Amino acid sequence: MTSTHRIRMKNRPGRQLVANDFVEETIDLPALGNGEVLCKTRYFSLDPYLVGMMRSWEGPDPGWQQGLICGRMVAEVIESRDPDFTAGDWVQGECHWQALEAHKASTLSKLPTDSDIPPSAYLGVLGSSGLTAWLGIEKILQLKAGQTISISSAAGVVGGIAGQLAKHRGARVIGIAGGPEKCASVVSDLGFDTCVDHTSDNFHQQLAEATPKGVDAHFENVGAKILDPILERMRDCGKIALCGLIAHYLDEDPITLKNFRMLLTKGLRLQGFRLFDHFEETEAAHGEILSALRAGTLSLRETITQGLSQAPAAYVAMLSGGGIGKHLIAIND
Amino acid sequence: MTSTHRIRMKNRPGRQLVANDFVEETIDLPALGNGEVLCKTRYFSLDPYLVGMMRSWEGPDPGWQQGLICGRMVAEVIESRDPDFTAGDWVQGECHWQALEAHKASTLSKLPTDSDIPPSAYLGVLGSSGLTAWLGIEKILQLKAGQTISISSAAGVVGGIAGQLAKHRGARVIGIAGGPEKCASVVSDLGFDTCVDHTSDNFHQQLAEATPKGVDAHFENVGAKILDPILERMRDCGKIALCGLIAHYLDEDPITLKNFRMLLTKGLRLQGFRLFDHFEETEAAHGEILSALRAGTLSLRETITQGLSQAPAAYVAMLSGGGIGKHLIAIND
Repeated sequence: MTSTHRIRMKNRPGRQLVANDFVEETIDLPALGNGEVLCKTRYFSLDPYLVGMMRSWEGPDPGWQQGLICGRMVAEVIESRDPDFTAGDWVQGECHWQALEAHKASTLSKLPTDSDIPPSAYLGVLGSSGLTAWLGIEKILQLKAGQTISISSAAGVVGGIAGQLAKHRGARVIGIAGGPEKCASVVSDLGFDTCVDHTSDNFHQQLAEATPKGVDAHFENVGAKILDPILERMRDCGKIALCGLIAHYLDEDPITLKNFRMLLTKGLRLQGFRLFDHFEETEAAHGEILSALRAGTLSLRETITQGLSQAPAAYVAMLSGGGIGKHLIAIND
Repeated sequence: MTSTHRIRMKNRPGRQLVANDFVEETIDLPALGNGEVLCKTRYFSLDPYLVGMMRSWEGPDPGWQQGLICGRMVAEVIESRDPDFTAGDWVQGECHWQALEAHKASTLSKLPTDSDIPPSAYLGVLGSSGLTAWLGIEKILQLKAGQTISISSAAGVVGGIAGQLAKHRGARVIGIAGGPEKCASVVSDLGFDTCVDHTSDNFHQQLAEATPKGVDAHFENVGAKILDPILERMRDCGKIALCGLIAHYLDEDPITLKNFRMLLTKGLRLQGFRLFDHFEETEAAHGEILSALRAGTLSLRETITQGLSQAPAAYVAMLSGGGIGKHLIAIND
């Protein structure tokens, strides 16, 4: 019988998620059934949205009710009892935080075999992050050339892709990120026009100086501490795409906005959106992103942490603002 | 020289607007100039949105900077020095809170002479209130037959018209109003399917019982105390038309929403809107409203207070929730 390692929730987190809320355990794998595929997880994705399910132990995968985490992965097939897969195939799908795992073949899809794209990209720019960014820019904000867009969490994966897609459309792109290192990367690596540091003492003033004509469109990933000053900068009849509220995932406190009235007085539209409501609209996204990747006009930084055991610490660090771009765990052994 | 009476702001209001913030004065009218029309104001409109300008002494009319109030009126022409108007004509336009006033002819428009519609209707159902209600239902919420819509300030003029237009479209219409008298009127006079009293102790529970399948569309006129429980009742991908925030006009306190996250987690759209951004879309509105008025399928209650001197007290009473429907001052003498 084969055994493997798995990370699970040890308890429901308190007000702050900490690495000690997780535990690593060794488990035995049952014999592989018909239609199942044994995979070695190579990368799994550390995504902010998971924290809600980590708190509630509820989610689409039944494993959540036992504290098992379920997220996106790419993996290598070790053994297959399904005719569509063979040992050595690279696949994508969902996994628990686990080194070896048996998957139903129907839940996996193969990565292209002749691809010049590294497998980890299928968790980021070619995965749900890229689709989400595209959806926000193209369908929710309907961004046009000459408009000014601001993007929070600009050094994060969705924000970083959104900004590059916005540049492709001829917009002026203002990033918002935490700390000088992230801001520098957003401009130099991702090509944003400028990036404002929301941890600096005069953030509001810097934001005003970066947006002298105001903001036509805003892509929000963080929460009230960004949205409130942005509302002051929004132009009349502007649009806000509400993609994430990472600053508010760790607690259930009410959200307070000094400038909420401006949604009315400026005639603004705020649209919360979820990728799974719009899959049919994202067909065009994959083509645009793949072309841009190959043309070198779309880049993505990755923060890759080696080793399953490091996943809890890496996840907590990401939530508190560490690292740039797509956050992944890599398992090489 | 003719003299007349006028109400103006005596001082900038404190945290609460009170009748004592206004003063009545007697003024002399200058001789009528060319292109001017002397009118006797017959009705002027008490609208919640004026309170912002009453606070700031700033507004589109330069009179605001001297504490003069400027709102909508219908009036009778007394004397005209413009070829387009004659004594006895009924007109609509804007006025100060003043019994007799000289207007530039270009700012006035005549009411239809053969109309079966009472002049006061041009300040309500046929005025900006009716257009606003239509815009919210038809363009912002794009309401469809079979949907459930909730409407706050349902006993108010915009909410009351919005609910009736929603019924015409085959929606299930849930009113929200303050107190049993208003709720009863919303159902019996305006034909809403039901109306929930937000002043009752178990408002949240009543709201849940009135919307067992949730709410597809919400028309907001009030503020956080309604919007927060409604967010819990919103169905995924629902729409919210933000038309007014009457509960938040009297102060500048931040606005706190316990359920703000639901805008994201349910994929909701919240659209603030202002009539003047959409005038070109409201052409159809007048026709629909006039037909419905004549067919008797659209009714509007009016709270009419007699006499210019009563305007401050009537305005303050309206803001604190007194009265039903369109609030007007009538000047008969």
